[in-house]
Amino acid sequence: MIHFPERVKICECWARDGLQGEDQFIPTEKKIAILNRMVEIGFKRIEATSFAHPRLIRQFSDSLEVLKGIQRPPDVTFIAIIPNDKGLDRLLEACDQGYGVQEITAILSASEDHLLANLERTFEEAMPPLADVVKRARQAGLKVIGCIGTAFGCPLAGEVPLGKIIELTDWYLKQGATSIMLGDTTGEANPKQVREVFGKMQERFPGVDFIAHFHDTRGMGLANTLAALQEGIVYHDSSFGGMGGQPATRRPKYHKGFAGNTCTEDMVVMMEEMGIETGLQIQEVIETALMAEEICGRELLGHVTRSGPIRHRSPQPLSPQDFRLGWEVPPALFSVENLGARTPRQDLPGRVIREALEKIWPLPAGLGIDLDGVLVKSEIEERTILVTRFKPLGLEKEKGRAFLEVLSQKANGDIYLQGQVKLVFP
Amino acid sequence: MIHFPERVKICECWARDGLQGEDQFIPTEKKIAILNRMVEIGFKRIEATSFAHPRLIRQFSDSLEVLKGIQRPPDVTFIAIIPNDKGLDRLLEACDQGYGVQEITAILSASEDHLLANLERTFEEAMPPLADVVKRARQAGLKVIGCIGTAFGCPLAGEVPLGKIIELTDWYLKQGATSIMLGDTTGEANPKQVREVFGKMQERFPGVDFIAHFHDTRGMGLANTLAALQEGIVYHDSSFGGMGGQPATRRPKYHKGFAGNTCTEDMVVMMEEMGIETGLQIQEVIETALMAEEICGRELLGHVTRSGPIRHRSPQPLSPQDFRLGWEVPPALFSVENLGARTPRQDLPGRVIREALEKIWPLPAGLGIDLDGVLVKSEIEERTILVTRFKPLGLEKEKGRAFLEVLSQKANGDIYLQGQVKLVFP
Repeated sequence: MIHFPERVKICECWARDGLQGEDQFIPTEKKIAILNRMVEIGFKRIEATSFAHPRLIRQFSDSLEVLKGIQRPPDVTFIAIIPNDKGLDRLLEACDQGYGVQEITAILSASEDHLLANLERTFEEAMPPLADVVKRARQAGLKVIGCIGTAFGCPLAGEVPLGKIIELTDWYLKQGATSIMLGDTTGEANPKQVREVFGKMQERFPGVDFIAHFHDTRGMGLANTLAALQEGIVYHDSSFGGMGGQPATRRPKYHKGFAGNTCTEDMVVMMEEMGIETGLQIQEVIETALMAEEICGRELLGHVTRSGPIRHRSPQPLSPQDFRLGWEVPPALFSVENLGARTPRQDLPGRVIREALEKIWPLPAGLGIDLDGVLVKSEIEERTILVTRFKPLGLEKEKGRAFLEVLSQKANGDIYLQGQVKLVFP
Repeated sequence: MIHFPERVKICECWARDGLQGEDQFIPTEKKIAILNRMVEIGFKRIEATSFAHPRLIRQFSDSLEVLKGIQRPPDVTFIAIIPNDKGLDRLLEACDQGYGVQEITAILSASEDHLLANLERTFEEAMPPLADVVKRARQAGLKVIGCIGTAFGCPLAGEVPLGKIIELTDWYLKQGATSIMLGDTTGEANPKQVREVFGKMQERFPGVDFIAHFHDTRGMGLANTLAALQEGIVYHDSSFGGMGGQPATRRPKYHKGFAGNTCTEDMVVMMEEMGIETGLQIQEVIETALMAEEICGRELLGHVTRSGPIRHRSPQPLSPQDFRLGWEVPPALFSVENLGARTPRQDLPGRVIREALEKIWPLPAGLGIDLDGVLVKSEIEERTILVTRFKPLGLEKEKGRAFLEVLSQKANGDIYLQGQVKLVFP
């Protein structure tokens, strides 16, 4: 038997880790639009922003406006990175005014070299003020994630001893941290290591919630997520389009190319395909990822945004959005005898079109199928095998009408039906 | 304890599955160049070409010339796809003349709908001639891979029952097939399913070599590979740059975007990082992937071609190729006291540069380091912490000389060394 958690708790990190390395400033209202959409489609943990000094990371100069702008259902946990006491001061003020977060992330690296490069502090310098941040946040009623960066290796220091991760976890828990994040900051983790590290950490700290935070720098984001799932890890971080990485500031950028987080939309599809509940609808997650692409103005690194979900395992009724996304539609293939031998000849085209559509999508009740634009080019027999292909042509969203090009061919290539189908959504 | 195979047998599929969907014709001599390079760097199983009819897939119209052109050490197995008896006739002729292959792949789909769409044949029509191909190939002394496509699901037919895969495996083995490939033709597999299917198949057919052949359509190539490794699978297929997919012919193309095979260079890095022997050197695999990129004229889908390997786990001495690839170099960080308190002041710059280089790479014996182009901008003390960054500027390959920009800074940002280092390789 293979065991995985029945359900996971995903933290969507696009608005913070995802945007941290983004050169262009994403307008505040667009950040808010994506965050609100995340809430609408069911994300329950959302990393909303960072309280890094606005001079250091301009992307987060609007952190307060972002927090003011988002909707806040009671069951959604918003999270912010708090790098120091000044950041905490600003956040607590926001909390007092009713637009704070419920959880903060405190940051350390497992490697002192990385800590020096990233925060310009030694352990000795970084830990006492951080302890203070954790304690004050806890006193203010906030939960605290103790983040341990470079937990799986560091490009500056090399291997990170497990003892260091244990020591820092111990320390965080003593300060009052409510969960521990092991961060693969520079994409050095491999699945074997992930299993070993999470396995040993959970043995050592039973009952502590560990968060898996991987970067896809070497393409292993999903494989490492799988390894963490196998160790029973419930908390997973990811970012739309696999965005993210080290800050694009004067700090060292360790790797070119793919430095981002594990890709949210690909991860959700993998989990849902494996029967692990994410609480999310694949189609809606993909749509939101496409919104993020539009906002960033370029194709991001997700796979399922290109391929679409696996239709026969994600049965969503056909909807206007299928046309908006413009996914390629697989052909429908069946023998005419499937339609029933007694279908009157004049009804055959309509039966063929409906059968073909139903082979591809569950059709919503009351869908109108208008064949006025379809020509019948030849006769068919009971034993004829038809390959019917549709191509989405366009959508009149307001009127709920969509247009499909249709070509239905016999096995020998002869055309049976050709033209344009109009669908009228109920 | 987590178990994986100690070593794997990778089949590099770039020259066949990789190129099958490529619109541009890759010149014969370039195919040969990559195939020869694969042999040189240690691939022992190589899918060299397809004997599909040249009219159907023009990319393989040069299959005989390719086979004539490649070097053939005795320990390398070359593999060709044989779709039908005519293809086999052509191959056997080539074998007689000394430029054949040692192994062929026979193709079926687990889904009849896919078989119809792909080969325009039902099971009843496809299997007798295929049986003949398998038997004749075996009589000619060739090994035969029985490929079962869409083994993890089919966009046309939906789920594929395990019973069908068992039935086809049984059939293949009876015809004389020497191994069985389960192909995730359209990227529908997920890791849970991969473990279940390979687990049950190995239980049912002990001693049979199963080959895992995944497509990265939904980004799960490496996660599925990991799942197959956990089931003890030793044979893995992959393609440089994640190239590959359905033929770009009149056959249906099921998915846009990423339809290719699991990416060779990313897969090799994952395996080697996990301590699984591939028999390959990461750096050489990445270089060959970059050759394939150059030949295809575009950036392919590999990750480690962008990020580079994890240096501290793949200790390769610094070599001229590090400059050719232009990877970003992580900064070196250390305190001056590391150099030894007694270093004479005038020797300090040289010691700093060497120490910094050694922090990043193992240096080859006899490497010359010329500091004529480096300026000393300030004093340093024993306790000074230096961050030293190098940027590859260029390479004079013939002379074995490479140039690095260097900037060595103190923690406060003051510059200690700045300029150009010349390296002379032994």
